[in-house]
Amino acid sequence: MAQVLSDRRDVQFVLNEQLQIGDLCKSERYGDLNTKTFDLFMNEARALATKELLPTREESDRVGATWDDGNVTVPPSFHRAYKLFREGEWLTIADDIEVGGQGMPQVLAFASLELFAAANMAFSIYTMLGHGAGKLIEVYGSELQKKMFLGKVYSGEWGGTMCLTEPEAGSDVGALTTTAVKNEDGTYNITGNKIFISAADHDLVDNVVHPVLARIEGDPAGTSGISIFLVPKYWVNEDGTTGDYNNVYVDRIEEKMGIHASATCSVQFGAKGPCRGLLLGEERKGMRIMFHMMNEERLNVGVQGLGSASAAFLLALNYARERVQGKEILKSRDPEAKGATIINHPDVRRMLLQMKAYVEGLRSLNYYTGYCMDKVVTSESDEEKSLYQGIVDLLTPICKGYTTEKSVLVCNDAIQTYGGYGFTKEYPVEQLARDTKILTIYEGTTGIQAADLLGRKLGMQKGQVFMKFLEQINATIAKGKELEATKALAENLEKAVIKFSETAMSVGKAAASEKVLAAFGHATPFMEVMGDIVLGWMHLWRATVAAPMVEKGKKDLAFYKGQMETARYFINVMLPITFGKMDSILALDDAAVAIDDASFGG
Amino acid sequence: MAQVLSDRRDVQFVLNEQLQIGDLCKSERYGDLNTKTFDLFMNEARALATKELLPTREESDRVGATWDDGNVTVPPSFHRAYKLFREGEWLTIADDIEVGGQGMPQVLAFASLELFAAANMAFSIYTMLGHGAGKLIEVYGSELQKKMFLGKVYSGEWGGTMCLTEPEAGSDVGALTTTAVKNEDGTYNITGNKIFISAADHDLVDNVVHPVLARIEGDPAGTSGISIFLVPKYWVNEDGTTGDYNNVYVDRIEEKMGIHASATCSVQFGAKGPCRGLLLGEERKGMRIMFHMMNEERLNVGVQGLGSASAAFLLALNYARERVQGKEILKSRDPEAKGATIINHPDVRRMLLQMKAYVEGLRSLNYYTGYCMDKVVTSESDEEKSLYQGIVDLLTPICKGYTTEKSVLVCNDAIQTYGGYGFTKEYPVEQLARDTKILTIYEGTTGIQAADLLGRKLGMQKGQVFMKFLEQINATIAKGKELEATKALAENLEKAVIKFSETAMSVGKAAASEKVLAAFGHATPFMEVMGDIVLGWMHLWRATVAAPMVEKGKKDLAFYKGQMETARYFINVMLPITFGKMDSILALDDAAVAIDDASFGG
Repeated sequence: MAQVLSDRRDVQFVLNEQLQIGDLCKSERYGDLNTKTFDLFMNEARALATKELLPTREESDRVGATWDDGNVTVPPSFHRAYKLFREGEWLTIADDIEVGGQGMPQVLAFASLELFAAANMAFSIYTMLGHGAGKLIEVYGSELQKKMFLGKVYSGEWGGTMCLTEPEAGSDVGALTTTAVKNEDGTYNITGNKIFISAADHDLVDNVVHPVLARIEGDPAGTSGISIFLVPKYWVNEDGTTGDYNNVYVDRIEEKMGIHASATCSVQFGAKGPCRGLLLGEERKGMRIMFHMMNEERLNVGVQGLGSASAAFLLALNYARERVQGKEILKSRDPEAKGATIINHPDVRRMLLQMKAYVEGLRSLNYYTGYCMDKVVTSESDEEKSLYQGIVDLLTPICKGYTTEKSVLVCNDAIQTYGGYGFTKEYPVEQLARDTKILTIYEGTTGIQAADLLGRKLGMQKGQVFMKFLEQINATIAKGKELEATKALAENLEKAVIKFSETAMSVGKAAASEKVLAAFGHATPFMEVMGDIVLGWMHLWRATVAAPMVEKGKKDLAFYKGQMETARYFINVMLPITFGKMDSILALDDAAVAIDDASFGG
Repeated sequence: MAQVLSDRRDVQFVLNEQLQIGDLCKSERYGDLNTKTFDLFMNEARALATKELLPTREESDRVGATWDDGNVTVPPSFHRAYKLFREGEWLTIADDIEVGGQGMPQVLAFASLELFAAANMAFSIYTMLGHGAGKLIEVYGSELQKKMFLGKVYSGEWGGTMCLTEPEAGSDVGALTTTAVKNEDGTYNITGNKIFISAADHDLVDNVVHPVLARIEGDPAGTSGISIFLVPKYWVNEDGTTGDYNNVYVDRIEEKMGIHASATCSVQFGAKGPCRGLLLGEERKGMRIMFHMMNEERLNVGVQGLGSASAAFLLALNYARERVQGKEILKSRDPEAKGATIINHPDVRRMLLQMKAYVEGLRSLNYYTGYCMDKVVTSESDEEKSLYQGIVDLLTPICKGYTTEKSVLVCNDAIQTYGGYGFTKEYPVEQLARDTKILTIYEGTTGIQAADLLGRKLGMQKGQVFMKFLEQINATIAKGKELEATKALAENLEKAVIKFSETAMSVGKAAASEKVLAAFGHATPFMEVMGDIVLGWMHLWRATVAAPMVEKGKKDLAFYKGQMETARYFINVMLPITFGKMDSILALDDAAVAIDDASFGG
């Protein structure tokens, strides 16, 4: 049967040949594991995604989540899938065995999330948030809090959320108005309304633990006055048993363009009666603590984008191999010529190769970032830890912002490949496109990611992180130049990287000068450029691994040759456009900020 | 009240200041009209769109068209709107008064369709198809056929469709299998199944006249053997009265991503009993005849794209002017600073200016094409007629292919501007995005438009049409160089046009050589480049008109300055990227066609 989630061979290639994650097993942390365990793990993840999650995708869209007097019901098919998820400990893939995790590397958590999100993005949101809330408790909770919550959240018996957004506090979290008032018993009374809270109520779990950002009475305005609280739907006693309803009330769920089965809730804390919460970590450290979860979710959202792009590409590819329409161009005047499958038409082929180039480049990028997280944990030198942590921080906005934008593009091209059929609900690609669109918005819009990159990440450690990141790319270029088959590609990428470095310097300097507004007017294009460069790097890296295999004429020759052609396409056909994008940024034209408000018209 | 369909001032600018359509009134055809009549016409169109069509948009999506045993029902609100449409003769804006038309220029038909499509795209499909079918009858029908059908179709009493697509014949129309067998009375029995037929049945009309492509028994395979027939749902007697049900049966309508109120029908001809049709024009001329309608609809679809892009931009603009979120960057560290409306954030401003640049550039492009159609009709010299007809033919794939792709992009950016709210059904932009996606598919996908441009249009009259088109651009550049305020912009555009001419030559030559496959692998990027160049031209043209007004400091100064900033943005920020796209095409890398099928993976 044709693959419809992620390309098994390519996943193996990235894990075992490009990143060579088997090396992680040399560390103490992963010393008990080996590549066989990794393969087994991936097989199980694939089976779960294909056999259990994928069949829920259509119902997920057609039935969706429903609301009735404060209670949310998920599509019926979710229950079996969720039960299996819990049984297989799929919520806690990369967590320590001591806290109920599988103890696998993060890179495999990403590779499996890609499959789960490809199979059913809405479903994956429930498990992502459950895990994220658990991680906050694991990292910042008191011993008692861990005892009370962690086991049940990590096992999926209870759900979790992240409660930041309010009607007047979206991208600007600091504007929130939810309040916390300390009680004599040390708990806090929480009052406020949060919106756009995914999974805030649902019938997969007995209880939901909400990490809630709120301001303690008297604390300063803005982000520095924000604390974070654990607010369960049903109160949790110190012995871990559940008590009374805690007046966490979902007053509605949103009607949305996609991810219909993901309940996007408006949550009232304390409107129906007193609602208590427990302070997590220290007072006024709420933003820093929540950002731990935010960073995790941003990376997860990137992988969700990879998943839907991957599914859309494979579906389009399968369709293009089967659908007969028109004749091959070279036989267009031959009345005897048979109909051609549309994969033979150059424009369809261009779309497919572009989709492939994005999907595979993004796979390498997102897996690589997971691999860097593993290196932070397993590296023995502080210098190496710091190097890899820096790369993770630097790449987070790219993983989130660039992957999701390209995933929208790939889903769009998948619809184009299907033609009129792609626009109908008879085929799955239009749902993928609608589901995917949320990814460029939640956990910080593309614009927010771009501002994070330009305003914070680029200048980390006085630019040292960025320089070390470039060194990684240049190491691949050096290797690429040594091989006859990749020399020209490496030289082309090198030119692009030199110009990119100049672009980053220029826009980074401008952002710290009186030209700050003009610079931030180019923040999103700059993130786009950096994403292109990273993908060029990933494709060259792939080609340097594939080239010797092509030369040897080993088995899987078609696969390895495909790697070479894809690298050629990305570097020779797509990167020239990136040069144009860099020229555009380098000119630093300020039309967008200079134009008067009134001149926009309307 | 804020505008939400098309910017009245900008529409006036294009019509009266850029194109100066008042000059058309010097012709005999439009001698009785003047710019006041034109303004009055546009006011009425705007009122109809705003007051009558716009209120039907949401119901259009939520209720949609429904099917019951062969009969299609449109949303209830459509009936009043359609009645007003008929009463105002809005189906036949640019048609001769003698055949029931309003006798207005085509450019105004486009300007009003922009409004109608912006207000409710699904509704506009019904009227577009009714008109298109009428036009076929007007141009190719016998005197008797005109007497039988034309009045009722043009007045909207009866509906119309275009029946090309079959399950195995989509982009490849020549593969159709619907047959026609001649009866003794000169009629033909039609048998076959057409799919994706918009408006094939609905309760706005008493009868539907289907122009149907079919092959007469014994005629050759492929497009050269296709004839076209008028097949009414209820038979029409020679005296114009309707007779029996003609066995045109809609067996289902499609569930789709958007345009829910537009019934996309599967139509059986002759499955329920004999179904008769009348030959339209000569035998085996069906493709040529249908292409008359196809070209009309392609231009209309471009204008639909302009309409939804325009609506999405204005909605985003209004939202950005009202939504308060975060502080201005320059005050971000000032604790006393008030919240800023998001139009103040550079990245939001960039999105808005980019949307504005696309919408206004596309408005100029689509109106200009309508104006050229008017010049074909009104010009007195054959040379001029031929010049303008050539430009219309050349620009048709750009109007259709480029406008609709950019309209998808603009709707997407509108969602981004709204953030999380944009993804909900509480706001209209997600519907615009879903509705708009069909535009890149129906009436020939983007890839089909690109192939038409590269394979047919570029080389028309041995490239003479293309050369004359470049002359038009160069005339604007020459004018732009004369003005101090536009000199630099004109010089930048000139460089782009020189490189574009080289690119067109290169890819055009390749398409006629053994590199044909590689060339067609770059057809869509080439169309994209040509669209960029045309928009650069339109913006320079706008700037040359606006610059003297800015200098004079006349009223509407904000508007004219906005024109200058938008031109600056498009030419200085976006065209550099076009240079990169041209480099990519010029390299003519053939990776997309060279890669083996097996190397795509999957």
